[in-house]
Amino acid sequence: MLTVGIVGAGLRGQLFARALADVPGVRVAGFAEPSAQTGEAASGATGVPVHPDHRALLAATSPDAVIIATPDFAHREVAVDVAGAGIDLLIEKPLATTVEDATLIADAVRAGGGRCLVGFENRWNPHAHRAHEVVASGSLGSPITSHATLSNSFFVPTRMLAWAERSSPAWFLMPHTVDLLMWLNDSAVASVRAVSSRGVLAARGVDTEDVVHALIAFANGATANLTSAWVLPDAGEGIVDFRFGVVGTEGSITADLSHQGLSVVTDRTRSEWPLSGTIGRSQVGPAVWMVEHFARALIDGGDLGPGVDHGLAVTRVICAVEQAASTGRSVSPDEL
Amino acid sequence: MLTVGIVGAGLRGQLFARALADVPGVRVAGFAEPSAQTGEAASGATGVPVHPDHRALLAATSPDAVIIATPDFAHREVAVDVAGAGIDLLIEKPLATTVEDATLIADAVRAGGGRCLVGFENRWNPHAHRAHEVVASGSLGSPITSHATLSNSFFVPTRMLAWAERSSPAWFLMPHTVDLLMWLNDSAVASVRAVSSRGVLAARGVDTEDVVHALIAFANGATANLTSAWVLPDAGEGIVDFRFGVVGTEGSITADLSHQGLSVVTDRTRSEWPLSGTIGRSQVGPAVWMVEHFARALIDGGDLGPGVDHGLAVTRVICAVEQAASTGRSVSPDEL
Amino acid sequence: MLTVGIVGAGLRGQLFARALADVPGVRVAGFAEPSAQTGEAASGATGVPVHPDHRALLAATSPDAVIIATPDFAHREVAVDVAGAGIDLLIEKPLATTVEDATLIADAVRAGGGRCLVGFENRWNPHAHRAHEVVASGSLGSPITSHATLSNSFFVPTRMLAWAERSSPAWFLMPHTVDLLMWLNDSAVASVRAVSSRGVLAARGVDTEDVVHALIAFANGATANLTSAWVLPDAGEGIVDFRFGVVGTEGSITADLSHQGLSVVTDRTRSEWPLSGTIGRSQVGPAVWMVEHFARALIDGGDLGPGVDHGLAVTRVICAVEQAASTGRSVSPDEL
Amino acid sequence: MLTVGIVGAGLRGQLFARALADVPGVRVAGFAEPSAQTGEAASGATGVPVHPDHRALLAATSPDAVIIATPDFAHREVAVDVAGAGIDLLIEKPLATTVEDATLIADAVRAGGGRCLVGFENRWNPHAHRAHEVVASGSLGSPITSHATLSNSFFVPTRMLAWAERSSPAWFLMPHTVDLLMWLNDSAVASVRAVSSRGVLAARGVDTEDVVHALIAFANGATANLTSAWVLPDAGEGIVDFRFGVVGTEGSITADLSHQGLSVVTDRTRSEWPLSGTIGRSQVGPAVWMVEHFARALIDGGDLGPGVDHGLAVTRVICAVEQAASTGRSVSPDEL
Repeated sequence: MLTVGIVGAGLRGQLFARALADVPGVRVAGFAEPSAQTGEAASGATGVPVHPDHRALLAATSPDAVIIATPDFAHREVAVDVAGAGIDLLIEKPLATTVEDATLIADAVRAGGGRCLVGFENRWNPHAHRAHEVVASGSLGSPITSHATLSNSFFVPTRMLAWAERSSPAWFLMPHTVDLLMWLNDSAVASVRAVSSRGVLAARGVDTEDVVHALIAFANGATANLTSAWVLPDAGEGIVDFRFGVVGTEGSITADLSHQGLSVVTDRTRSEWPLSGTIGRSQVGPAVWMVEHFARALIDGGDLGPGVDHGLAVTRVICAVEQAASTGRSVSPDEL
Repeated sequence: MLTVGIVGAGLRGQLFARALADVPGVRVAGFAEPSAQTGEAASGATGVPVHPDHRALLAATSPDAVIIATPDFAHREVAVDVAGAGIDLLIEKPLATTVEDATLIADAVRAGGGRCLVGFENRWNPHAHRAHEVVASGSLGSPITSHATLSNSFFVPTRMLAWAERSSPAWFLMPHTVDLLMWLNDSAVASVRAVSSRGVLAARGVDTEDVVHALIAFANGATANLTSAWVLPDAGEGIVDFRFGVVGTEGSITADLSHQGLSVVTDRTRSEWPLSGTIGRSQVGPAVWMVEHFARALIDGGDLGPGVDHGLAVTRVICAVEQAASTGRSVSPDEL
Repeated sequence: MLTVGIVGAGLRGQLFARALADVPGVRVAGFAEPSAQTGEAASGATGVPVHPDHRALLAATSPDAVIIATPDFAHREVAVDVAGAGIDLLIEKPLATTVEDATLIADAVRAGGGRCLVGFENRWNPHAHRAHEVVASGSLGSPITSHATLSNSFFVPTRMLAWAERSSPAWFLMPHTVDLLMWLNDSAVASVRAVSSRGVLAARGVDTEDVVHALIAFANGATANLTSAWVLPDAGEGIVDFRFGVVGTEGSITADLSHQGLSVVTDRTRSEWPLSGTIGRSQVGPAVWMVEHFARALIDGGDLGPGVDHGLAVTRVICAVEQAASTGRSVSPDEL
Repeated sequence: MLTVGIVGAGLRGQLFARALADVPGVRVAGFAEPSAQTGEAASGATGVPVHPDHRALLAATSPDAVIIATPDFAHREVAVDVAGAGIDLLIEKPLATTVEDATLIADAVRAGGGRCLVGFENRWNPHAHRAHEVVASGSLGSPITSHATLSNSFFVPTRMLAWAERSSPAWFLMPHTVDLLMWLNDSAVASVRAVSSRGVLAARGVDTEDVVHALIAFANGATANLTSAWVLPDAGEGIVDFRFGVVGTEGSITADLSHQGLSVVTDRTRSEWPLSGTIGRSQVGPAVWMVEHFARALIDGGDLGPGVDHGLAVTRVICAVEQAASTGRSVSPDEL
């Protein structure tokens, strides 16, 4: 029986707990959660006991594996402690928001000897999954250029996230698309150009960037174009706009995850992502499939997915995007 | 431990066996399969032993439940025997292709006292599932009219199905959309008008109908419009064209399952349904979720889904479509 | 110089007047309009003098051609007078709303010896125009089956049209799609099945049908499926939903005129038809191109387009749809 | 009567001649065309006489206006001569492919005193036209960020254009999108970042860039993201992929000119642009409406559209894109 502890008992932590309840051979031993209110809700919804912090969780449950589902900027301490103890780890993206933090976590994982999956959940997204199958099969030839847009409406930075001002479109959104394009291109990032702007969100009381555009030159000669904005109109087709594509020498692929074929018109028109949380008795969706994969791979030793070195590489790219936007120069992530 | 036998070890039977292997508390005890070659393939792929027919399977394994995955016109004998023995049943749609066969099966289920799910798998299709949630929530008001198109390219009747001539667009495709629109409208079918044509498939050596269009008047006053064709060009966007929609007094819903946001261009352009068979360690897709639901509902006694009476009702509607098309008159399914 | 009179100085009449102002060799001699207010507006906008009725218009201007742009049910008297005088005629669709009226008009055209175009303006709609080119080229093989949906949101029958109760989705919308599918299939209509419902518009104070569905068997063996509803939600993507398609033995064509690639999100999302009225110095759009064609063909004797016999045939089909919906029987338009 | 001379009697020159034949008050006096074969074809198709070069055309016809429809890199000499003589001018985009050439042309226009329209034909494209109306109305608030993709399949550089190696995606395609986004944003370009790659076309014998991505910072603080590739698969949905969008503080607009609602499936699937060349008696399409506008504005003195200074500004931006791509630095067009 694989025992799992979950640090952070918010929506994501609870989702992981429910998903693991359906996996044979797995037991969720406890949550770590500082907020008494959040902890009670999580415990009531899942029946899993709650501890006040990750140290108490570790002491009480001696878990085989830990899932870190805290806000982005609060990964380092927990991750270093858990990884340093040799415990297997699923850590939400981005690994960290500075190269220093990400390097410390990566060092701890290597020193501790445990396994680590960074939660780039598009690896379990059906569109991205299928796109990767197609590209990896060689049927598009060699990638020439790619693009990815991942943006949110105002709702996310102004109402959904309490900590938007401590994040940005670059940190909250672009790790997903950087990971995705690195995966599809199967290449490291050689250099980055970028431009960004701010002012609109600041005027609404959230002092961070409105939008960031980045151009990537990959080590293999391919290029890519990424956009993330936090200023889409709320009256649009949902809070997320997500599209990507690859042009190869022999073909191309385009994915529009904002239009998956379902439109509901009531007081306004919108597209829907029909992969909702529960269909019949089965929980479905990328995050569910990711955590199921994590548990099963720990049990049978199979391939775990994107690890801590990749998580560090993505953090370097986002830092390079920020520096390129502010300097107007091409920046190499490896110099950071 | 719930033991399950599967009659028919073709692609669908094997898919069900693999899906059940991931459900805690379930064991697939055996297949029944007359073809030695198919049986060997299934046994090699799944490790499940094979018996030559359903009687041998029942005698050897005494299953708690049986899944019937034989061709449409070969349901009656197996279903009557299994249901008559009081064994729980998952039977693929359509329940049967005559009102007489469907009635006999329904009688056997009632007499035997077992439970029965008819495999209208769109109940576990994310688009249909979400559409039903929206309609059932009342946010569209009352349904006024609906439509559904479910068609195949020539590939299906001329190359995929060995028994296309013993079936038709009405029998192979329309049970899905009749079920779907009855579910979304929550109403019985009062009468049917229809038109059909043949000649193009016959000229290609498959003597059945090319296309059927049907108009439905529901008991609650709503109407619907259904199309199923077997003559779409093979160079299109895949072998299935599937769309549906509902117009209600307060809103509408439209689903286009042929365009789920993924396009691959190689030697030709096509849309793809990205819900492929395996994502990470998880098997995904409507048929998987249906059979998981079936097993779990048998274990815990939960609601099973569309039963044998509904299966009989759908068979009556398709028979009414055929009669309406040939006579040019409105036909009531209840008269058949 | 070709002189043209226009009966009806509403929006359509004014549009025709403006469009003809750009055609060399054409002069709009006058409007006939009983409403002083409408007449003044038209005269102010176009500089064209207004007469109180068609008799005064004919007496004062002796036009070479007349355009009839009155409401559907007010065509007969004007058309019979004008056509009987041998004057060339552009008459808006439907030719008339009874077989009797349509026959009288057709007889008058034949007796008078003038030319007549019935304003089935989809012949000048770029999507329909291109679809016809493709079908007529033979590159789809022979048509097997077709479909067309032309529906409006509640806005049209409840707010835009003062005379909705004297019309219906069958009369206001379906003449367009019946014409379109007859044109694309190049065949007469052999028989019609239909179903309709009412109640929702009646509850909103407009006592006419909510929706009508019709199935057509063409003389050449092909079939078609038509839907027109007047009950789409106003919060959708515009007031018109228009789509059609043809499946042929060698290929297919699909047209979605509701999604022409332009989306504007402000307080709600919608698609737009970017063929707006004026681009640079050019007036554009199907009605403009239709009336330009009409004038030029009168000047040079070229082919005029769908004539009065076709207009009569379409009126017969809509009458057959109404009878088929009320009787539940297949109805042949030729029997009416 | 406005007399017009056309330099270059290829497809574009002939299209302009045919379009002007429908405009009252305009006469096409002659072509200038060095190729005897092209000249004969043009003369046969249009009845317009052909002269061997622009000097002979000017001497023989003394035109009021001249249209320059030669290849991009062959504008300078003709334009300087014509503009210097004070003759009104329609010159195809880009104005020139170096800042030096563009400046000389702009100087000649100013010195000669004639009027000049640079043929940025998206101003007459219905999607772009409507997008500009929406943005200019203020209903989207202030633009925050924009994007535009304009790409071609391999067909264009490898088979359609004889002179592709002397051009590039930056010069052949991006002037359209730079113009479009400057127009929609109503702002000058402050700086440009870019990345490009080459190798795939070179391997096919056309030694130019495969793809260029550019990021723009506008003077008003808005940003934009542009992509142009010449390496899309030929099996896709046509030879052009064209999309753009604007996100404003109060709303957004998205235009997908590659999917205008028409799909034809024969041996492969493709979208179509249904604005074909002739509908009924009317020639339609952006280039037709542009040249009609040009002629009418010359006749009545109305606003002509984007002039030579704007043409120069766009040339500066493309030069900046090239320099930014090669240096990895942000480049200001005004420094060039």
